[in-house]
Amino acid sequence: MRPVAVIGIGKTAFGAFADRDLRSLAVEANQRAFEDAHISPNLIEAFYLGNFAGPSFVGQNHLAPYIAAASGLAGIPATRFEAACASSGAAFFHAVSGVASGLYDIVLATGVEKMTSQTTPKVAEILAGAGDLSGEVKAGATFPALFAMIARRHMYQYGTTREQMAAVAVKNHSNGAKNPAAHMRKVITLEQALKGKPVSDPLTVYDCSLVSDGASAVILAPLERATEFTAKPVRVLGIAQTSDYVALDEKDDITTFRSLREAAAKAYRMAGVQASDIEFAEVHDCFTIAEILALEDLGFVAKGEGGPFTLAGHTCIKGKLPVNASGGLKSKGHPVGATGVGQIYDVVQQIRGEAGERQLERHRLGLAQNLGGSGATSVVSILEAA
Amino acid sequence: MRPVAVIGIGKTAFGAFADRDLRSLAVEANQRAFEDAHISPNLIEAFYLGNFAGPSFVGQNHLAPYIAAASGLAGIPATRFEAACASSGAAFFHAVSGVASGLYDIVLATGVEKMTSQTTPKVAEILAGAGDLSGEVKAGATFPALFAMIARRHMYQYGTTREQMAAVAVKNHSNGAKNPAAHMRKVITLEQALKGKPVSDPLTVYDCSLVSDGASAVILAPLERATEFTAKPVRVLGIAQTSDYVALDEKDDITTFRSLREAAAKAYRMAGVQASDIEFAEVHDCFTIAEILALEDLGFVAKGEGGPFTLAGHTCIKGKLPVNASGGLKSKGHPVGATGVGQIYDVVQQIRGEAGERQLERHRLGLAQNLGGSGATSVVSILEAA
Repeated sequence: MRPVAVIGIGKTAFGAFADRDLRSLAVEANQRAFEDAHISPNLIEAFYLGNFAGPSFVGQNHLAPYIAAASGLAGIPATRFEAACASSGAAFFHAVSGVASGLYDIVLATGVEKMTSQTTPKVAEILAGAGDLSGEVKAGATFPALFAMIARRHMYQYGTTREQMAAVAVKNHSNGAKNPAAHMRKVITLEQALKGKPVSDPLTVYDCSLVSDGASAVILAPLERATEFTAKPVRVLGIAQTSDYVALDEKDDITTFRSLREAAAKAYRMAGVQASDIEFAEVHDCFTIAEILALEDLGFVAKGEGGPFTLAGHTCIKGKLPVNASGGLKSKGHPVGATGVGQIYDVVQQIRGEAGERQLERHRLGLAQNLGGSGATSVVSILEAA
Repeated sequence: MRPVAVIGIGKTAFGAFADRDLRSLAVEANQRAFEDAHISPNLIEAFYLGNFAGPSFVGQNHLAPYIAAASGLAGIPATRFEAACASSGAAFFHAVSGVASGLYDIVLATGVEKMTSQTTPKVAEILAGAGDLSGEVKAGATFPALFAMIARRHMYQYGTTREQMAAVAVKNHSNGAKNPAAHMRKVITLEQALKGKPVSDPLTVYDCSLVSDGASAVILAPLERATEFTAKPVRVLGIAQTSDYVALDEKDDITTFRSLREAAAKAYRMAGVQASDIEFAEVHDCFTIAEILALEDLGFVAKGEGGPFTLAGHTCIKGKLPVNASGGLKSKGHPVGATGVGQIYDVVQQIRGEAGERQLERHRLGLAQNLGGSGATSVVSILEAA
């Protein structure tokens, strides 16, 4: 396997865009990535598109050639990858694999989702398709309900508190307020978060990520060719994708994501680094409790310490391990299929030192963690300044 | 790139199975493939699932880990690939790439679709999602209508006749009647086919493939390890996936699939063979006219000669170039996501000499051709007895 680098990144703002269709969002992200890498589309050899539920949200299927052709890429292999909220994480994993193995030199990995044209109940129904319809969903569980069970059990087992979960939201909103591309640029207080409208006890609206539209794109090349395109290549040092049972009730322990622990172990091994080497991370805070689990399952803190670590401020931009400096899914937004590649975008932006007001002090070695469903898919990527 | 072999195949019957759910179909195909390769699931390193529209047909999304876990594969990378009717062709392409490049040794590529629980109008609506919703579909075109336009233009330009198209149906029904796993085992006459109920002029019901449930699976390994698992390894000699515009009106010429011509050229080059070397083929006869175009675009006959070649009987089991000895999508059935890997199954079965009543005389070098939409995705695979 040869070293792979990110040579270009592009992204739309995340938000609710009534006047934009799915394809135009993806094309915009692609074009920005082409510009960023100073590359002509005809150099792209394969297209990896992450999209969770375009057919359900907007009716359009067969999205990879649809978007490829509109981006000037007709002809090349163009494939859609679906792995729930880790759809573009999976696309990125396969794109990296394609270059690492020498199949291709230059490839494009893109994520897109257009969610806001549906009503909230319909969005909840479509998202529930990432759970087990024959079991947990049939029993009435939506994703907020599933993560509420995770939260309740984590509170019981480790003493995690609602204040600690609220602290995740407060931090991510504070970060997102500094991100011009974030969906909800609004600072909130701990008190507000605690008094949020209940969604699924113990989770309030402030514990839930956003329903958003958006797209993100990254271009990959062999590291040895990276400087043909960019002065600031970022190396993909380690990456892994893993799977687990879909239904929560099939898992031995719901206070941990097994797939995430396994992906992290593989990615650290491939990168030759340890959790303690990581300088910052973008993690999958679809719900505040998910960020707490991620801190633990990635090995940043011991099991049960995710909540206290957050409340103590260690994951803030000025803390010892900044997490979700972008605002995370909570404030930046969560256009499902765009999230995985969007996290890579944010990590690359930090490594390059181009994160503006959110720029971190230590930004050489970053990690991105993308979760599908309640942990049936995990993708962990470790990136480093090349 | 190292040589890759198919070491195991599995398949359900194709048909309308009211009492079967999507997952159980896929699991059955996987288990049959494990048995065929005498392999334990824990040796499988990655799972490539082709599925077009599970979320729309049955509501369930996040299908790759869902099926992987039920097949004893929890933990490994499990990803769903969507490329319309070429979904499992795309999954197979990426699976072959994963082994060829040395990323993995043993991988599983599976295709599945469960369509018959929906009403016919709803099926047509879901299938239309593989076309351009903002253009051709908005204008009222379903897939039968799109292929009717292709047929009409091919008739005008090359003199192709309804008899020639009907001859495709007659042949494929005759072949499928010999296939115990076929959906519609019914011999039809040319007269019946010509008098079929009109669907979209000039196409009648006998020009259209079936709406089916089913699953298919193949296991891949490096050629050098193949004999650990099977006495009859089949080598993937050449393979290519390509893309084109989705909408018919964006294409220069609708009497040819550009993506197919390009995929064929690439696959022949990789395999080091010519069209005239191919001994038999499974082609994507979603409509009878599509088989005629395939004969031409694959280079088996000159442009415009697909119809006469068929009517002359050359593509029959006893003909000089047997095509769709399995019965094709027309008679075997077309569970969309299962079709691409299903074709590989059928080609491998022939190469191994295990096709029973349908067994061809010359069966050393076969080709499978899988089409997405009206040609926005093409996958061509060339297989040979190892």
